[in-house]
Amino acid sequence: MDFSLNDDQIAFMDAASQFAAQEFAPNAARWDREHIFPVEALRKAGELGFCGLYTPEDAGGLGLSRLDSSLIFEQLAMGCTTTTAMLTIHNMATWMIATWGTEEAKSDWCDALVSGEKLASYCLTEPGAGSDAASLKTKAVNSQDGYVINGSKVFISGAGSTDVLVVMARTGGEGPKGISAFVVPANAEGVSYGKPEEKMGWNAQPTRMITFENVHVPASALLGNEGEGFSMAMQGLDGGRVNIATCSVGTAQQALETARQYLNDREQFGKPLAAFQALQFKLADMATELVAARQLVRLAAFKLDNNDADKTTYCAMAKRFATDAGFMVCNEALQIHGGYGYIKEYPLERHVRDVRVHQILEGTNEIMRVIIGRRLIADMGSVL
Amino acid sequence: MDFSLNDDQIAFMDAASQFAAQEFAPNAARWDREHIFPVEALRKAGELGFCGLYTPEDAGGLGLSRLDSSLIFEQLAMGCTTTTAMLTIHNMATWMIATWGTEEAKSDWCDALVSGEKLASYCLTEPGAGSDAASLKTKAVNSQDGYVINGSKVFISGAGSTDVLVVMARTGGEGPKGISAFVVPANAEGVSYGKPEEKMGWNAQPTRMITFENVHVPASALLGNEGEGFSMAMQGLDGGRVNIATCSVGTAQQALETARQYLNDREQFGKPLAAFQALQFKLADMATELVAARQLVRLAAFKLDNNDADKTTYCAMAKRFATDAGFMVCNEALQIHGGYGYIKEYPLERHVRDVRVHQILEGTNEIMRVIIGRRLIADMGSVL
Amino acid sequence: MDFSLNDDQIAFMDAASQFAAQEFAPNAARWDREHIFPVEALRKAGELGFCGLYTPEDAGGLGLSRLDSSLIFEQLAMGCTTTTAMLTIHNMATWMIATWGTEEAKSDWCDALVSGEKLASYCLTEPGAGSDAASLKTKAVNSQDGYVINGSKVFISGAGSTDVLVVMARTGGEGPKGISAFVVPANAEGVSYGKPEEKMGWNAQPTRMITFENVHVPASALLGNEGEGFSMAMQGLDGGRVNIATCSVGTAQQALETARQYLNDREQFGKPLAAFQALQFKLADMATELVAARQLVRLAAFKLDNNDADKTTYCAMAKRFATDAGFMVCNEALQIHGGYGYIKEYPLERHVRDVRVHQILEGTNEIMRVIIGRRLIADMGSVL
Amino acid sequence: MDFSLNDDQIAFMDAASQFAAQEFAPNAARWDREHIFPVEALRKAGELGFCGLYTPEDAGGLGLSRLDSSLIFEQLAMGCTTTTAMLTIHNMATWMIATWGTEEAKSDWCDALVSGEKLASYCLTEPGAGSDAASLKTKAVNSQDGYVINGSKVFISGAGSTDVLVVMARTGGEGPKGISAFVVPANAEGVSYGKPEEKMGWNAQPTRMITFENVHVPASALLGNEGEGFSMAMQGLDGGRVNIATCSVGTAQQALETARQYLNDREQFGKPLAAFQALQFKLADMATELVAARQLVRLAAFKLDNNDADKTTYCAMAKRFATDAGFMVCNEALQIHGGYGYIKEYPLERHVRDVRVHQILEGTNEIMRVIIGRRLIADMGSVL
Repeated sequence: MDFSLNDDQIAFMDAASQFAAQEFAPNAARWDREHIFPVEALRKAGELGFCGLYTPEDAGGLGLSRLDSSLIFEQLAMGCTTTTAMLTIHNMATWMIATWGTEEAKSDWCDALVSGEKLASYCLTEPGAGSDAASLKTKAVNSQDGYVINGSKVFISGAGSTDVLVVMARTGGEGPKGISAFVVPANAEGVSYGKPEEKMGWNAQPTRMITFENVHVPASALLGNEGEGFSMAMQGLDGGRVNIATCSVGTAQQALETARQYLNDREQFGKPLAAFQALQFKLADMATELVAARQLVRLAAFKLDNNDADKTTYCAMAKRFATDAGFMVCNEALQIHGGYGYIKEYPLERHVRDVRVHQILEGTNEIMRVIIGRRLIADMGSVL
Repeated sequence: MDFSLNDDQIAFMDAASQFAAQEFAPNAARWDREHIFPVEALRKAGELGFCGLYTPEDAGGLGLSRLDSSLIFEQLAMGCTTTTAMLTIHNMATWMIATWGTEEAKSDWCDALVSGEKLASYCLTEPGAGSDAASLKTKAVNSQDGYVINGSKVFISGAGSTDVLVVMARTGGEGPKGISAFVVPANAEGVSYGKPEEKMGWNAQPTRMITFENVHVPASALLGNEGEGFSMAMQGLDGGRVNIATCSVGTAQQALETARQYLNDREQFGKPLAAFQALQFKLADMATELVAARQLVRLAAFKLDNNDADKTTYCAMAKRFATDAGFMVCNEALQIHGGYGYIKEYPLERHVRDVRVHQILEGTNEIMRVIIGRRLIADMGSVL
Repeated sequence: MDFSLNDDQIAFMDAASQFAAQEFAPNAARWDREHIFPVEALRKAGELGFCGLYTPEDAGGLGLSRLDSSLIFEQLAMGCTTTTAMLTIHNMATWMIATWGTEEAKSDWCDALVSGEKLASYCLTEPGAGSDAASLKTKAVNSQDGYVINGSKVFISGAGSTDVLVVMARTGGEGPKGISAFVVPANAEGVSYGKPEEKMGWNAQPTRMITFENVHVPASALLGNEGEGFSMAMQGLDGGRVNIATCSVGTAQQALETARQYLNDREQFGKPLAAFQALQFKLADMATELVAARQLVRLAAFKLDNNDADKTTYCAMAKRFATDAGFMVCNEALQIHGGYGYIKEYPLERHVRDVRVHQILEGTNEIMRVIIGRRLIADMGSVL
Repeated sequence: MDFSLNDDQIAFMDAASQFAAQEFAPNAARWDREHIFPVEALRKAGELGFCGLYTPEDAGGLGLSRLDSSLIFEQLAMGCTTTTAMLTIHNMATWMIATWGTEEAKSDWCDALVSGEKLASYCLTEPGAGSDAASLKTKAVNSQDGYVINGSKVFISGAGSTDVLVVMARTGGEGPKGISAFVVPANAEGVSYGKPEEKMGWNAQPTRMITFENVHVPASALLGNEGEGFSMAMQGLDGGRVNIATCSVGTAQQALETARQYLNDREQFGKPLAAFQALQFKLADMATELVAARQLVRLAAFKLDNNDADKTTYCAMAKRFATDAGFMVCNEALQIHGGYGYIKEYPLERHVRDVRVHQILEGTNEIMRVIIGRRLIADMGSVL
């Protein structure tokens, strides 16, 4: 058991931190305000390898562990929550294609995806299904030379601005076993996009509904085998949960730093805010919760890297705890700023709006509790 | 001790409820999105007496109690949080002019204010002062025939779109005793307005900085006597805190209704969400907290009506508790809606953004704790 | 709507407060330590009418409202939580006999019960049933001249030291409609008592299992009609929940007073604890929660007095909120006392142990959430 | 960064777990009830090395790291919280003597202490000082051949039943620099003991006041140099906080296991409690909080082992978070058990009473917040 970072990890974190400070932080408020999807910045991130962090090296990625990736994403999220979250989704989709894609699919997409030249979206959620992913209705029917996909997906991050879609569709009967995963070009005939959802936050990435109407894909578009799609989606989500939890930790760290600077700078009643004990206590609790969240996230990433039997449970715990802690920390940092926390001239209200969705997506925090609770009840005697 | 509403109260609430449903609710999302200050709707509210609810009848108001006013504001807030909050500020300022204004000031303003033909802003907070209101620096210097005001105010609700300002300025030495209150026409020479603050919420009302540069007002602009301004401001705030707490309660009630409708309508895993026990429990806690908050707000209003020795403490308690409860309820209602809670097609994220500022303004909830804590420590043996 | 107390209420509260200070407070620690059931003190309470507060006047009680009774119980609980809780159970059982008893039962018991000469226990809970009261298994079989009761009850307050038992037993089929209520002399042949349970707190009253083995009671022992027992039990519980919530409020008020005295008296780091802002904030939150709890309890009592359609929901809310708030306040008061809070020389640890069970009995707080949640889901559109 | 346990660690944990199950668990309830200080069991713990876990090997200890020691203490605490807590205090005192003691002191005490043949108490807290340790008043005056100690200490664990005392006393001026540490035989002339404090929990160890009246100790009794005592005490406390936090984690794990067993075994409303979603969610949150607490404790131990510049802050965070989480988990486990949680036949109420004091001792959790808050404010720009 060793909690220290090695030199490589520190170097990666430094690089990510610098990149975030230069390319993300100065623009994040504007991207939010003007609803800009910063494709250029994502491409630059790709140049540093951030678009294929845990994609295997033979597919052009850096082949890092999930733990190392989390260290990097945390630094990036300090610069822009939303853009980093998009980057993590892209990393997940890219990893799926590199891991389960046919040679043809890999050669078509991997180079462009790990370099950030092209971007990927992950298409699981459907209208009316939400957390009950296994009930999805989008169909992929075996046709000559491939499949024909029909159905629709909602809340797809990046949709309309990305180049390739990883799509879960039903090739078999009801339930999880009937689901398969496909790589679909974003501009394939029959793919159409809804208007961008107006959201509370995450404004630096478009979220749209996607409709698939008789979309033909070749047999080589299938990831792995038929019926393995749900399992892939769930494996993707384990990592996705660690990633989104990481984005909460990074944002919360940024909010904490902003708040403690403010406490030192701002005076009230003739002394700096930092001199008020109740505010010191608030800051102490924010930091404690944050450090606990960070450790839990890293523990979950480690369990994932080691293919631990309880990896899904640890990922669920990390997602639940860190996204709640992240929201609490950002929200308290806003409160510490008083009226200034509520206006867009300061970053706090944006942090709150951005991390809020982390408690909902990749499985709501209620679904996380279902996962954790079931494991505890089912597997008596085995300690987590 | 009697917790039942009388017929008049029920009639007032019904009228307010209908008005809110017709004039506020259908427009609230648009006002938020397009940053519209709905002057017309406020005027209509004035027609029903809602612009001078507790303004004395001899000044044209309805002369209602604070408790009755709270019942009405709660219903209105169910239609639009922000507009109702603005209305409460207008009511407070109007009440101050009607209570302490010279005959001249009253005759100049009261009719137009209680009818909603004209609107008022309340100008206390200054840059760098925040919660430490007694340290304000805006000066009003006695000059021939009146006063000359110099200084600036920040976070002024309605600023730039209202007609009259109640301004706290220093006429004497340091501390609260040196402060006086003035009625200043919003378009007086020397009054200039900053650009609208971009805010997390409360977008249906403009918030601006106001600068006073050699603004001349006649002696009749003084409310009460010199040196009484801080006391007036604090009396205004007692009521203001009950009002803003009321806006949180009304909004939370609306969010709760939306959430329980959603739980009944939406299915997951083959049954309505309402069938999931953990969601039932969440709803139960939201409702319990909300009912407790409502009672505390009404208790504080009652204490204010009866000029209770501890009225300020009760108002602080109500403000602290109800604005925290309001945020919790709205935020949980958002969570219950999952992804739909996060998009602007549903009202939840707006409710969260709107009530968030209630924990900050009219004295942050930390200042409320200062007020309550001091009272408890100082006045031993006396039970609240 | 009127939150003020009338002269009668104030007089009752003063009398109760004095009685609690003289008869309960000086002995409460000893009763706890030595596990003494203070029959004598209960008898004295009876002399003042506290044993039949809401028992109708024609049965010898004071015929007060539930709200008035709550005001009185709150004062008594400031002197001894456990003894007051026992008193409330006695009041509930007495009220049931007076309300639904046959003339014979009333003439047998009411005088002695309202005077405190004799004491009553309430026997609902069974081993293995817990919160699922409707599944109770104790049987009362119609026999010549009466009934024969067989079965067992657990966690019965006062058992072994009281004189009469109100017993729920099954006279019909499964479910709530098959349950009837009986008045059983505590020393009837066939009634036997387990050894006193060793408990965390509530040590000033014995809690025992009771076994009924062919216990014969006359027909006149039946309360109301056969099959009405569950309904009576539930009506009893509505009031019982308000009462136990009241005991939490009174105890918490006592703990709060002790804590604020301590904060003023005790010095650390060269100044009184009261000067530390974080402790002031803690005290402020304790008081706010307590005042909110008290209002909610009184509101529920009022709803009960007025036979409001939602009385059960309000009683559940009051019980849930006030017993949680009561525990929080006592526990924080303990924390404020540091090491002194943990030792029996000070009353705080006793308060914590005593109020802890209030979150469990008369229906756990989880059952309260079931009640509240169901009502919210079922009765859409109707605001609480 | 590696979260896995090595073989040695697993072996140590297994040994500790077995020992706790055999020697502690079957007796813990009785030790609590009868207020037995289990000297024999502590001696047996010594035989396995548990009395000198991190005492250097050259002084007869196992020379383990704090992290390894925490792994072991956690397992022991699953058997008996109080006895394990006493063991950690003994370990701390033994380590202090072994680290800073003169050769004479070490040869007098170390063998007997690491073997558990003799036991040690740690004497820092004074009446009226509490958290403000630096203001202690016990004096050690330089006399011929040694020192004369006068003063008194309160809340001393094990006092009256241990063999040696590590005593902080003032040899110089006011403040922390005037404090020195001494090794004092528990039966030295002039040492007298108060009666055992009656406590809420921790009943398996005596807590007494100790009075020092002209207690002569030789010069060799001084640990390190004069004036270093406060620094030693604080170093001792860093470890003490990790240890006590560990005891909370172990106890909470035990409570969690008991609760999930109960949920599977117990039926209500016709199905096992484990089938109720709200209870599953409760269990999920308990486990998540517990896993987070455990990681934070291990992180703090690691920082201590590596003499990290922020070790004190991490120890404070771990102590604050884990003792709060531990109390929450035990208290919820009690609640899950309903009435059975409240009686001594089940272990839950004892767990709650035992871990409650962890939030108070070794510096209250409020003092932890002071430490964390100060570090955050003072050391800007440096991330924890």
